[in-house]
Amino acid sequence: MTKLSPSEIEQKLSEIDGWEYQENAIHTTFEFNDFKDAFSVMTRIAFEAEIQQHHPEWSNVYNKLQISLSTHDSGGVTEKDFTLAKTIEEIVAAES
Amino acid sequence: MTKLSPSEIEQKLSEIDGWEYQENAIHTTFEFNDFKDAFSVMTRIAFEAEIQQHHPEWSNVYNKLQISLSTHDSGGVTEKDFTLAKTIEEIVAAES
Repeated sequence: MTKLSPSEIEQKLSEIDGWEYQENAIHTTFEFNDFKDAFSVMTRIAFEAEIQQHHPEWSNVYNKLQISLSTHDSGGVTEKDFTLAKTIEEIVAAES
Repeated sequence: MTKLSPSEIEQKLSEIDGWEYQENAIHTTFEFNDFKDAFSVMTRIAFEAEIQQHHPEWSNVYNKLQISLSTHDSGGVTEKDFTLAKTIEEIVAAES
C-alpha cells in the first residue's frame, strides 16, 4: 500500500467533511448525545474496521470520540485510511 | 462524592495491580491478542460503566487499551473510580 503525498491527501480530504491531516495521519472528532450513542457508533466502526483489517487509533470520553487514521506499515496515510474514513462517515450519518 | 486524598489513593492503589495515580486520575494499560479481544473487553466495560453511570477516558489502538479514571464533578479521584477500576480488573481477568 503506497503512502499518499500531501497533495493527494489534501485532494481526498476535500471529498469528506470534518477531517484534517496532521502528523502523518488524518483526524476527526465527533460528539454524540451521550456515552451509549458514542459507544454504539464505536461498535459499528469496530466491526467494519475488522472487516477491512484496518484499525483506528481512537479515544473516547463520555459523548466524545476522537479518531486518527494512518497506515503503520506504510509510514503515513494510504487509500486504506480514506476507505475507513468514508465508512466511518457513513456509520455516523446513519446513526444521526 | 468526596475527592480522595493522595494518601487514600495510594492505599487503595495497593489493593489493585497495575494502576498508577498521575495528574488527578488513575491510569492503566492492557495489551490483548488482537483488536477483537481488545474491543470485546471494551464492550463489556462499556456496559458496566453505563450501569455505574461512571465512564472511562480511554484510548485504543489495535490490541492496546489505555484507561484513565477520574470523577470530573469532584475534580479528582473518588470511590467511584476505584469501583469501576475493580470492575475493569474483573472483566479483564475473566477474559484472559
